[in-house]
Order: sequence, then structure tokens, then C-alpha cells
Amino acid sequence: MAENKKLVQAITSMEDDFAQWYTDVVLKAELIDYSSVKGCMVIKPAGYAIWENIQKELDKRFKETGVENVYMPMFIPKSLLQKEKDHVEGFAPEVAWVTRGGLEPLQEEMCVRPTSETLFCDFYAREIQSYRDLPKCYNQWCSVIRWEKTTRPFLRSREFLWQEGHTAHATAEEAEERTIQMLNLYADFCENVLAMPVVRGQKTEKEKFAGAEATYTIEALMHDGKALQSGTSHNFGDGFARAFEIQYSDKQNKLQYVHQTSWGMTTRLIGAIIMVHGDNNGLVLPPRIAPTQVVIVPVQQHKPGVLDKAMELKNVLSNFRVKVDDSDKSPGFKFSESEMRGIPVRVEIGPRDIAANQAVLVRRDTHEKMTVSLDNLSEEIASLLDTIQADMLERARAHRDAHTYTALTMEEFTKTVEEKPGFVKAMWCGCQECEDKIKEVTGATSRCMPFAQEKLADTCVCCGKPAVKMVYWGKAY
Amino acid sequence: MAENKKLVQAITSMEDDFAQWYTDVVLKAELIDYSSVKGCMVIKPAGYAIWENIQKELDKRFKETGVENVYMPMFIPKSLLQKEKDHVEGFAPEVAWVTRGGLEPLQEEMCVRPTSETLFCDFYAREIQSYRDLPKCYNQWCSVIRWEKTTRPFLRSREFLWQEGHTAHATAEEAEERTIQMLNLYADFCENVLAMPVVRGQKTEKEKFAGAEATYTIEALMHDGKALQSGTSHNFGDGFARAFEIQYSDKQNKLQYVHQTSWGMTTRLIGAIIMVHGDNNGLVLPPRIAPTQVVIVPVQQHKPGVLDKAMELKNVLSNFRVKVDDSDKSPGFKFSESEMRGIPVRVEIGPRDIAANQAVLVRRDTHEKMTVSLDNLSEEIASLLDTIQADMLERARAHRDAHTYTALTMEEFTKTVEEKPGFVKAMWCGCQECEDKIKEVTGATSRCMPFAQEKLADTCVCCGKPAVKMVYWGKAY
Repeated sequence: MAENKKLVQAITSMEDDFAQWYTDVVLKAELIDYSSVKGCMVIKPAGYAIWENIQKELDKRFKETGVENVYMPMFIPKSLLQKEKDHVEGFAPEVAWVTRGGLEPLQEEMCVRPTSETLFCDFYAREIQSYRDLPKCYNQWCSVIRWEKTTRPFLRSREFLWQEGHTAHATAEEAEERTIQMLNLYADFCENVLAMPVVRGQKTEKEKFAGAEATYTIEALMHDGKALQSGTSHNFGDGFARAFEIQYSDKQNKLQYVHQTSWGMTTRLIGAIIMVHGDNNGLVLPPRIAPTQVVIVPVQQHKPGVLDKAMELKNVLSNFRVKVDDSDKSPGFKFSESEMRGIPVRVEIGPRDIAANQAVLVRRDTHEKMTVSLDNLSEEIASLLDTIQADMLERARAHRDAHTYTALTMEEFTKTVEEKPGFVKAMWCGCQECEDKIKEVTGATSRCMPFAQEKLADTCVCCGKPAVKMVYWGKAY
Repeated sequence: MAENKKLVQAITSMEDDFAQWYTDVVLKAELIDYSSVKGCMVIKPAGYAIWENIQKELDKRFKETGVENVYMPMFIPKSLLQKEKDHVEGFAPEVAWVTRGGLEPLQEEMCVRPTSETLFCDFYAREIQSYRDLPKCYNQWCSVIRWEKTTRPFLRSREFLWQEGHTAHATAEEAEERTIQMLNLYADFCENVLAMPVVRGQKTEKEKFAGAEATYTIEALMHDGKALQSGTSHNFGDGFARAFEIQYSDKQNKLQYVHQTSWGMTTRLIGAIIMVHGDNNGLVLPPRIAPTQVVIVPVQQHKPGVLDKAMELKNVLSNFRVKVDDSDKSPGFKFSESEMRGIPVRVEIGPRDIAANQAVLVRRDTHEKMTVSLDNLSEEIASLLDTIQADMLERARAHRDAHTYTALTMEEFTKTVEEKPGFVKAMWCGCQECEDKIKEVTGATSRCMPFAQEKLADTCVCCGKPAVKMVYWGKAY
């Protein structure tokens, strides 16, 4: 009965219903469970282990650029949240308010942090006095709360995990440099570790972060042709510094405002991995982020020597994140389960393989099978994992490129969005009226003004006035 | 001016005012900053790096015992918190309540987790059906809120960081085994990594966790003779399982309640490190937990070759967590600062040392200086760090033993608590009346009934009736 309940069941195919396919994968790969707290999820071991690997990889890269980790309080007093006017306008409608502590009402209400600019500013105002105190490059790993009306696991939930970096610099140039540096770090991480190509660019005025002078973003394309904003980096100029009076005395002993940045990535990346790489058999994890890279499945494991051999191979493969599935389920069930969980390489080993001094390797991404000698199993797997990682990036890039279109007229724009989900490149005059109108007419929002600009035409796709930027548009999560 | 402000200032001596000494060290070693959020602190890079090392060491040990990490929501709906009656009585008075989300009042108020037993139980009730689903050994790293009236950095604050492990087992025996296993893991970690000896034992009925059948604890003795509860492990029996209906079908297909445990350690450990090892020059960090194990201070660094040599030595010492202080402060300032920050070994290198192919090593714990040849610097430092680690544990153990007293009468008990801060061992009849009376008369609370029992006498120190346990008593943080 219990065994039966757990049998790997067919999931909805992504061609039939992409949203349901996503939910099925999230649940059947045991990444999350819904909780009794509306809009919040339980991240289960298989999901959390992915997040731990994301943390490890990002944290290492942050520290190499001189970033240090800190921890700020999770609450923000109302008066503090209100200090920067654009910022409070952006966030006040979606925060959760604590009004009682212990048995008594609070003198001042506090919200649970939706983001911590105000706390970092309050701290920096005390911490920074001299140019010798600069730059400050701090980051924290924590959870934040945004009171969303509709939620989806990893993509949009009331609580999510993230990192938020907050830096303070002596000059505007240095702040801009750090903003771009972190965006590039994010993009490299997505491409090299998550095998996920991204478009790097700047958000329009309308889409930028509440309180920022400029917001930079990386945008990825999901399998269904929708965009996912996967990381952002903000340059605040001295706006927060003026609101919070964060000043330092420079070498001439003159008071100056600092220039600040912030940048963040979240558990949403797990949703991106699912939607970029997954298939109708479940999750497909890039080797560099997979909590288990290799699963060894003994076949006819009751026969003498089979389990021993499986354990021996596990030791041989100890350079990798490797597991043996020695449970009492059938090999067929174990195969399906390892596919559902997205484990990059499966090693099948049975009595006949042992006799022939070989094993069968199965690639999760292509289902390709190959027979290899046990004498060089470790080398074969090392090279196979590299191949899988590279192929996954290439396939995702090919998919992204095949689903990136150009629109020179509004008619073309509308038709493309309707018929061909993906990115639409189009020229733009720079005014918000056209941006609003494009959204109204086509349903697509501006994703970014890419760093890699192309001149598709001279005029705005919408109003016909001279164009100033080429923009990526798309429907987005 | 700015330089001047930052000069290492004398801290209050611990003999004059231990509480002020503690506060001075916490601030001057730059471990925390007070925040605008009452009762909450900002953990600064030097403090957070210690916590990261604690996390890394503990997490590795947890995983070796089969524990997996997960993440639960930070909110607990009121109805969920109320399901287990002892538990809600224990925690309701000290939680923070969220009553509004976005712009609207919540239909059901939620508290910010003070601990997550109720969330794990709610999850396990859905997750566990069969004996095949057991055991579940989950842990999470997160922050929790307890609305304390008086707070002190690391020791007692409204928000603190911790890990909370929550396990579910088929049998009572297995749950008890896991409870003790984790307590021993904590004790070994404290002794081997933090160089902090602890007394392992069981809490009395009065002092046990709200909802637990049995609470086990490790108790450490601080330099001022006060006790600090440093980690606890609880056996819940099937109490929570009955309240939350967490049942599994056993091999005979009969429904059974699971047996549960929970166990936690917190940022309070950083307070313990300070108060066990610190001295009148500041923090003293055990090498195994120190974010920086070795600091290289160049002397006369403007002279040709000195900075180059310092950098060369840094490379030679890359097996350790090593830094070069090449700031433009004076060597004397750098020496004081490295002492304030508790860096275990300082390497001083100047032109004369270079000429003689040697360096001066200074131990932080004893201030001992030694001159060593540069030819075997790495080996010397490896062995010195081991010696420091071992000596720190020995010194702390000697201090603890020298401040552990025996009381055979109440008069002796009162006098000892008054005159000799430390642990008091005394026999106890097991009734709460005597426990309450001892607290009232002497000011000491029961710390634990140690696993290593001694028979000091036949009768209770308080009432004279037959004794059932030898108890460690003391004033505590």
C-alpha cells in the first residue's frame, strides 16, 4: 500500500499544461510541500540541498570580490521604512506588520523585512565616518516576506530565501562599477553553474527597483517561452545616503554622501532550473548544482556480490556526490525515481555487468545509454558530467535563441507574442507611454534594455518617433 | 581624527566589572552593533564569521549522522501554536504577533516562530504514513523570535540565529537514542572545537522544555563562575504526535504514534566563547573556530622587501586562515587590534628578522613570544595552533574544576554561592519544593542532573529526606 502510493506516477506533459507540469515536478521530485501557512512553502531536503549548493557557489564568488557576511534584524520599525519616499511607496502595500510583542501592543509597529536597504542604511549611518571606512561590501543570507496575493512554489511566495548584498562607496563611479560587477557575477554563475543562459541589461524607469537610480537585471527564458527575472543589481546613487544622512569625511576633511548599491538572488532560481531544463520525466539537474550527481542502481541486488560491488563503486566515485539506491524497490521504480529527481548520471550494475567488468551509464538529459569498463569508470563519469553540463547550456541557449524574435511593427509584435512565446526584440523611443501601450496591446512587458544593443530600425515600434534603445520584451513570471 | 577614534582603547577589566568587560569586548572586537530595533542586534563581519564556522562544523557533524536540512515557514498560525497545551503555555507569553498582511488585517493572527515544533509536526502529519517513512531526521538553520524584556548581545536577544533539529522515530527507544546522540554531538563539538568543557546531564521537571518528556542539556562555566546552558536536546515521547495525530502503519499494518525529538544550538555560543576564553586584552578565539587563525604584521613595512616578505609568508601559510595587516596603522596598534580580535597566532616580521631568516610568533592565549626559522614556519604554526587549542581546553577545564564545589548542608550551600561563584554539587530528593526553596534561599537554580552521578551523601541537602539525584546548581545566564 505505502509502496504503491509512492510509485512514480506519470506527470502531466509540459505540452498539455505547462503550469500543471511545473507543479507536478515540484511535488513529485519532493522539492517542496505546501504548508498550513497560506502562501508559504516547506522546502524539503531535495529542494533545500539545491539551495545549499547555490549558496555555496555564490558565497565563494562573493567573498572572492571582498564581500563579507553580516546579519541584520528581521524587523523594520515603521519610521525607518518610511525614510526613503520611493522605497516605502514600493514596499508598504506588501509587507506583514507585527503589532504585538509578548502580551502587549508595540509602541511602534514593525514590518517583517521585505528587503533590508533601510536597516543597512541605518547601520551604515553609524558605522561610516571616514573615507577609511569605505567601501563597505556586506551581504546577508536570510528570508524575506512579501505579502503576495497569488503564489507559486519558488516563483512567487510570501516568504522566500535569498541573499541581499548592500555596499557603500566613496564615489558614484565605484558604486556603478560594483553594480555591474555583481550583475556579471550573477550572469556567469547562471551560465557556468546552472547551465542557464541569460540576457544582461538595464531595467526601464518603470520597471526599476523602488528607490534605485538604475536597476540592472539578468533575464532567462523558460521552456514555455516566458521570461524569468533571475537576479537584479541596483545602483542607488546617493538617494538613500541623503535620506539616512550617511556621510563620510574625505581626504580633504570635507563631508560627502556615500554612493550605494544592492543586489540579490533568491530561491526563485530553483524554479528557473526546473523550467529551463526539466522534461516530461521530471527534473533535470545540471551536474554542477545537483546534490546527487551519480546514482548507482544495483540490478538483481539480492544476488551475491551485487550490493558489495555497488558499494565498491561508490568508493571509487567518492570524488563525486554519489549515492547507492539499495532500497527494496524494483530497479524500474528506481530508474524512474532517479529521473524524476533529475540526477545527471545513473550507473546500472548487475551480475552480468560484473562478470563482464562493465557498467551501464545513463545520461539523464538525453536518456542515452553507454557501456563502460569498470577500469576507468571514474574518468568516464568525470568527462560525462562535463559533457552534460556543456550540452545543457548549449541546448538552453539554442532554445532561447530559437525563441527570440524581432518585431518592426506593432502588428508583427502582437502576432509574435500571440503565436510564438519567447523574447521579442523591438526598438523603443524611451517614453513610458509607449511602454504602457505595448503592454496593453501585446501583453508583453519590457524585460530589459540589453547591454548588447542592436539597431533593428531607426524608430520606435510603437509611436514611430526616433528610437533610443533596443528592448527585450516578453511575458514574464 | 578618524585614526584616533579607532585606536584600540583599554577595556574595562573583568575583575572590576565582568558585565561591562563583556559588553566592551563584544563592541571593541566588532562582533556586533546595537540596532534601531529594540532588543535585536546587528551581527558584524567578525561576529558572523564565527557563526559561519560554527555552522560549518556542526552541519558536517549533523549530516554524518544522517540529518538532512529543510526550511519551514517563519510564521505559525495561532491555531497551530495552540495544539499542544504545555507548549503553547510555555511560548505564548513571549512571541511576536503579525496581525496585518499588506493593507488588510489577517483572518488568523500568526506569530513569528519562537521554535518550530508545531510546524514540523504539521508537516510530519502529512509526510509520514508508513514505517518505511521513518525515521525522519530534519534540521533547519534560521532565526527565531522571543520577546525578551531584558536583552544582552548573543546571550539573550529578541531575535537570535540557531539550528533546530526535529526527528520522528518508530519507537520510544530510538527517539531516546537520538536525543542522547545529539547531546553528545553538541558536547564533543564544544570540547573539541570551542575548547569549552561542558557538564552533560538531564534537566529537572521544572526546568525542562515546554512539551518535552525529558530535556538534556550541556552546561558550561563562564569565567565569572556563572553557568551558561549551551545546547539542549529534548525527547518528546509521543506527546506531540498525539496532539498532531502523527501516525504510521507498522509492519503488521497497525497504526502507531511516532516518537519525536528536537535539539538546538544558538548564537549564544559566541557569548560562551567570549566568557570562557576572553581576557583583559579582549577576545581569545580557539584556533579551530577562529575566522583568522594567523595574522602577519609587517614591522617597518615601508622598508624595501618587508611587505613582499609578508605576502610571501602568507602564501607559505595558505593551509591556514591567514591575513596580512598591511594597513597604515602603527605596528603597536596592529598588535593590540589583533589581540582584541582574538587571533590565535601573530607573526611579526621586520627587516632584522628577514636578515636572520626568522620571524617572531606570539601566542594570543599566553602572550608567549618565540623566534622561529622561516624554513619551517608552516610546521611550527601547525603545531602551535594545536598546542593552543589543547591548552585552552585544559585551562578552561581546570577553571571549571576549581570552581565546582560540594555542599552537604544548606548553610554550606548558601555560603558557597555567596562567596565562591561556580557550580555547586548537592544531593536532592527530587521534589520541586526543595528545588524552589534552594533557589529562594541561595539564588542558584538547578543546572542539570549530570549523567556522571556521584553519591555525596544519602539525603537531600534541603529537606533531609532520601536523595535520588546529585544535581549541579549555579547562577546562570
